[in-house]
Amino acid sequence: MLANDLRERILRGDFPSGTALPPERELVTQTRMSRTTVREALRILEVQGLVVIKTGRSGGAFVQQPDGGSVASSVSLLIRGQQLRLTALLETREAIEPACASLAAKYRTDDDLAAMDAANAIVGDLSISLDAFLKANVDWHLAVATASHNELLTGFMTALSNAIYSSTENTAFVDEDVRKTTFRAHKTITDAIRAGDPAAATRRMTKHVHGYAEAVVQVEERTEIDIAE
Amino acid sequence: MLANDLRERILRGDFPSGTALPPERELVTQTRMSRTTVREALRILEVQGLVVIKTGRSGGAFVQQPDGGSVASSVSLLIRGQQLRLTALLETREAIEPACASLAAKYRTDDDLAAMDAANAIVGDLSISLDAFLKANVDWHLAVATASHNELLTGFMTALSNAIYSSTENTAFVDEDVRKTTFRAHKTITDAIRAGDPAAATRRMTKHVHGYAEAVVQVEERTEIDIAE
Repeated sequence: MLANDLRERILRGDFPSGTALPPERELVTQTRMSRTTVREALRILEVQGLVVIKTGRSGGAFVQQPDGGSVASSVSLLIRGQQLRLTALLETREAIEPACASLAAKYRTDDDLAAMDAANAIVGDLSISLDAFLKANVDWHLAVATASHNELLTGFMTALSNAIYSSTENTAFVDEDVRKTTFRAHKTITDAIRAGDPAAATRRMTKHVHGYAEAVVQVEERTEIDIAE
Repeated sequence: MLANDLRERILRGDFPSGTALPPERELVTQTRMSRTTVREALRILEVQGLVVIKTGRSGGAFVQQPDGGSVASSVSLLIRGQQLRLTALLETREAIEPACASLAAKYRTDDDLAAMDAANAIVGDLSISLDAFLKANVDWHLAVATASHNELLTGFMTALSNAIYSSTENTAFVDEDVRKTTFRAHKTITDAIRAGDPAAATRRMTKHVHGYAEAVVQVEERTEIDIAE
């Protein structure tokens, strides 16, 4: 169908990002399909993140090459729909983050290091609210993923972070000690990435995410016991 | 909009998988929206993998909870659109497969082990074609991912396998020796998974996927040099 045909041409690189597709009316003439069909095809491509439809005077359908965003949103659908166990999310994170840290130690730029430092400065500021701490924490982890310069791992991590931080409602265990420990762990990992030491970056990140997973699971278990009593 | 509303209700679990949504005509009456809008909303949900539209006598729109398939297809779009470097795929696989092997050693069932054994029996059969070998190879890797009983990692692996095996066109390096080595590596990994030994399963899988990545990269480099001369 029309959507398939256009998709193939976009993916093949026939239209670079930002190219305007012909107006709806012209597509109708060219393809001899109904206006409804043409509109539906454009809508499908929009949902798949391959075109952006803008309304108004200089509006129309503009080509967009797929990016990590569509992966992130399909992962989010999967996570929300299956009410995936938090354990499954944490297991996946334990698989992906040490690899991100290792690649970051190889490929990080000065900008990447600056982003990690900036996020961790906020993480270490004990005067900010819990929400601000949690947000800065996600920012630091995403900065490490970005520094891997692997679009796929970055897309996976974006989806995971959103899901993990929205599914850990019980943040009671995040006290001042946890904040200090987090800041220090981030700092030693950032140091290894700055020094270009993939082995140390992997080892420290593995320890850090595993520690977090254990803390979360302990809290969940404690909470369950409380309810049972 | 209608699509958003229905999506929220599906993800919240209001409609279990397989539930038929009201017929188009009834949705038009209920929502007071036009037939075109209703049809478009259903089409969007279909593209997102949240409903299956069946035509014919007992047709209609049936709810489907999202599964690994939609993640796999968005990853495929990303890979094809960006013509993602093969290196990025291999890096991601090196992150994910050892974790799958480790979890498989903890959670595998007898059926999981039977699936791995069946796939590897074909991998080890030197009389079959290269295509049949490559397919059985993917099957074994997916069987390990399935045995992790982590839907997210399994979804990621499905997407990666498709992409990796369709992007390695140069399979010149897969000779009889490579086939024998692959069979033996799979066997020792399966043994560790059967024995419930996560550390050995991780170590052996890490070595196996890293070896494959190196072989592919060497071939690619050799190929590039050939072209350059």
